[in-house]
Amino acid sequence: MAIYDGALQDLIDELGQLPGIGPKSAQRIAFYLLAADKDRVDALASAIQIVKDKVHFCEVCGNVAEAELCRICADPRRSDDIICVVEEPKDVAAIERTREFRGRYHVLGGAIDPINGVGPGDLRIQDLMTRLTTSDVSEVIIATDPNIEGEATAAYLARMLRGLEVPVSRLASGLPVGGDLEYADEVTLGRAFEGRRRL
Amino acid sequence: MAIYDGALQDLIDELGQLPGIGPKSAQRIAFYLLAADKDRVDALASAIQIVKDKVHFCEVCGNVAEAELCRICADPRRSDDIICVVEEPKDVAAIERTREFRGRYHVLGGAIDPINGVGPGDLRIQDLMTRLTTSDVSEVIIATDPNIEGEATAAYLARMLRGLEVPVSRLASGLPVGGDLEYADEVTLGRAFEGRRRL
Repeated sequence: MAIYDGALQDLIDELGQLPGIGPKSAQRIAFYLLAADKDRVDALASAIQIVKDKVHFCEVCGNVAEAELCRICADPRRSDDIICVVEEPKDVAAIERTREFRGRYHVLGGAIDPINGVGPGDLRIQDLMTRLTTSDVSEVIIATDPNIEGEATAAYLARMLRGLEVPVSRLASGLPVGGDLEYADEVTLGRAFEGRRRL
Repeated sequence: MAIYDGALQDLIDELGQLPGIGPKSAQRIAFYLLAADKDRVDALASAIQIVKDKVHFCEVCGNVAEAELCRICADPRRSDDIICVVEEPKDVAAIERTREFRGRYHVLGGAIDPINGVGPGDLRIQDLMTRLTTSDVSEVIIATDPNIEGEATAAYLARMLRGLEVPVSRLASGLPVGGDLEYADEVTLGRAFEGRRRL
């Protein structure tokens, strides 16, 4: 349904392919850019291209990085003996925001998801094994998502790591802080019972 | 809260300034672009810049255009004697989708909105007056939005056009087709009564 002239319609089409952007939002953003200062628009266009040229993945942990190592792997103040395994770089960002963890990360690049054709070989699991056998790590925390794919990945990793004699832990499941017990789903509430702690 | 390295964070910041894009969506889009093919990303970046270079506003009606005239003003098959007055180019697109209207448009570039400092002088009203006095128009349809600003603009235009002896009409207000009477707001239902038609 090309309603507009060429260039504007092209932009709306391109924007509409971004995740979470429907045709209405695409149109809204396109008109916003049409009315915006040239500097703002150039800044956006170049930020898009620079990210593609400059950002790649850390050689050690698989997090996003502009140098050979990511900011966290390059930081000498962080502890080498705990590795937290996550699915995606955005999970690293989420955990960093808590300021609770001062170790290193390992980013798998996804989770095991047979329906979408993602098997263990598509994830950075072999790299993790190599990393664990060549360095002195006292704990591996598995922080994959608490959904079907993340749990399957956690179970697979736990099995793989059993031979290495490294203690492996999994993030706690339970009631979200600030939430209402009444509105918790059964599975979460069940997990909260299961993982109850003595006071 | 800069969580990522430079270029990625710059892109997230730029995307977060677009209308309707919050920090979470900005992060999601940024990671999508990071993982996307270089061609796709270049296409988006260049679509953004091309729109800024090539698209401007039609000299006659104020719609978006790549040439001197927009597609509609340049189309010889459209009728010159009805002009439909709208607020924005996206309203032109909305009306075009109905395929009900075969005349020309006049895009005001907004609506009278004193709270945000938009007065009649900021809109293309003078251009409309000139256009109506220099050509032979048999009807002006005012299709500004059915909200406070749009109604105020319609009332102002109706007053301005009174001297020109051109019939002026306003789009009907009433119940949306496919809607439920029960869920219509009072104002809309009131308008539907007021504008009732004999069968």
